[in-house]
Amino acid sequence: MSDVIYPKMAVIGCGLIGSSVIRAARAAGVVDEVAVADASPEALKRIHALGFAEHVTGDVAEAVRDADLVVFGVPVLAMGEAARKAAPALKPGATVTDVGSVKASVAEALAAAVPDTVFVVPGHPIAGTEQSGPDAGFAELFQKRWVILTPQGRDDAPYVAAVERLADFWTALGANVERMDEKHHDLVLAVTSHLPHLIAYNIVGTAADLEEVTQAEVMKYSAGGFRDFTRIAASDPTMWRDIFVANKDAVLEILGRFTEDLQALSRAIRWGEADKLYDLFSRTREIRRGVIAAGQESAEPNFGRDRAKG
Amino acid sequence: MSDVIYPKMAVIGCGLIGSSVIRAARAAGVVDEVAVADASPEALKRIHALGFAEHVTGDVAEAVRDADLVVFGVPVLAMGEAARKAAPALKPGATVTDVGSVKASVAEALAAAVPDTVFVVPGHPIAGTEQSGPDAGFAELFQKRWVILTPQGRDDAPYVAAVERLADFWTALGANVERMDEKHHDLVLAVTSHLPHLIAYNIVGTAADLEEVTQAEVMKYSAGGFRDFTRIAASDPTMWRDIFVANKDAVLEILGRFTEDLQALSRAIRWGEADKLYDLFSRTREIRRGVIAAGQESAEPNFGRDRAKG
Repeated sequence: MSDVIYPKMAVIGCGLIGSSVIRAARAAGVVDEVAVADASPEALKRIHALGFAEHVTGDVAEAVRDADLVVFGVPVLAMGEAARKAAPALKPGATVTDVGSVKASVAEALAAAVPDTVFVVPGHPIAGTEQSGPDAGFAELFQKRWVILTPQGRDDAPYVAAVERLADFWTALGANVERMDEKHHDLVLAVTSHLPHLIAYNIVGTAADLEEVTQAEVMKYSAGGFRDFTRIAASDPTMWRDIFVANKDAVLEILGRFTEDLQALSRAIRWGEADKLYDLFSRTREIRRGVIAAGQESAEPNFGRDRAKG
Repeated sequence: MSDVIYPKMAVIGCGLIGSSVIRAARAAGVVDEVAVADASPEALKRIHALGFAEHVTGDVAEAVRDADLVVFGVPVLAMGEAARKAAPALKPGATVTDVGSVKASVAEALAAAVPDTVFVVPGHPIAGTEQSGPDAGFAELFQKRWVILTPQGRDDAPYVAAVERLADFWTALGANVERMDEKHHDLVLAVTSHLPHLIAYNIVGTAADLEEVTQAEVMKYSAGGFRDFTRIAASDPTMWRDIFVANKDAVLEILGRFTEDLQALSRAIRWGEADKLYDLFSRTREIRRGVIAAGQESAEPNFGRDRAKG
């Protein structure tokens, strides 16, 4: 157990990530009191039942009152409005952060909405599952995962201290913390998260629309590789719609590269250029080894999911 | 334990699938004696050490002599040559099958190579992991997975009985067996296996080639979705090179559909057509539910791999 870092934390939007932040912060002992606001009446009922917050409300301003840390966990295009609702009630000196997967546009929306008396430190934990809602969260979600903070261009001592304090908070939750320029964050995540989701959604859509192959066949024979993509393509639709709208430029740039490479691969197949295929297929194995070495993946075959097979 | 179905089984090419067939057949008690041939001296050493076969040799003809079932487990473009080596030594009445991921071209190669005195029944277990070699196999690999048989156009009683016998063999190994036209198989697998591998290889290659984002960043922040693709892109390069060459027409057809859909998605992002994105992202969730309901996937978040996290 660590010392308390933020006596009162408010979480606005209590889905998979928001509820995991609460569970992990409680488990680490770094908060004393938690207030939650959520726009969904069903979510509020579940949050009450889960019993991990002292204050549960539909009113954002009510939740953030007296909070030392405010974490916005709503879809990225909803951040601005949530922050505007919070603004009048924010305590001077509070730290305002978020967990959104896009940073440049969210940073701008947060900064525009809240008063200068609070410290805005946008953030993004690179962790999650394909599930959604307050029941989907768990305290271990951030263990060994990276959290990227994108501090605003300020180097005054109180702001620097606020960034340090937020980094300590995430470290106490088991995460590794990195600071990064927000534009670079958005490009890195376009590669490691947004494009993978886009092509997973796309291939599942393509498979569902074929006339010659039935959906039942797609499901039955999915263990050949397809099933992996269905997991990613089961992620929250609102969250992902917002990400592609908010990170349009970086996503289209990376998608352009991907498509170019795919055309070259298609041409190699058409002309039977077996060596080109072999070269690419050998090169990609190294990246897998690197991901495992970086502690971001299970080394077990098939992610270890065969263990669950009876 | 079942009764013995094939007193002597020969496995030609003892990688992940070949060695799993041996382990599973031993565990089920459906073979008495196993002979293995492999072209790799290192593999032969490992097979000796693993001790699951009575006869271990580099000579295909020697392995298949007196075998009641011959299973070809080599890359699909190597099937023809392996079958030609086996042909002179095949016992009349033996069943010849394979485990290749492409069926039309393999069926043709096998049928052309072996005498009319044996029964050719091409097959394909839809199961595997990203690992390769005799050590990667395990007896449970085929449990609840589908095996597709693509019988040749013959309805004489001995041939029909040979197909039944092979189906019984796979059933004893824990698999569900389906019969299918070979052309249809190749199209279905292009969707559920070959295209997923192609785009996984492609995205990992694209990410490795970027100048603005380092490979270290790609690995560190891979938990946002990318890491899933690296697993598939770590599959055996020779095996996959052969699959794309051997199933060119079906792969290019399905890839054409995928690319068309991806262009439409790209356009929707460029023009901020949020509703189109939301519609697709909602639709794909259903397919995931179907895959889980079909018993082909773990229902646990993140494939259950968080259980392994410490």
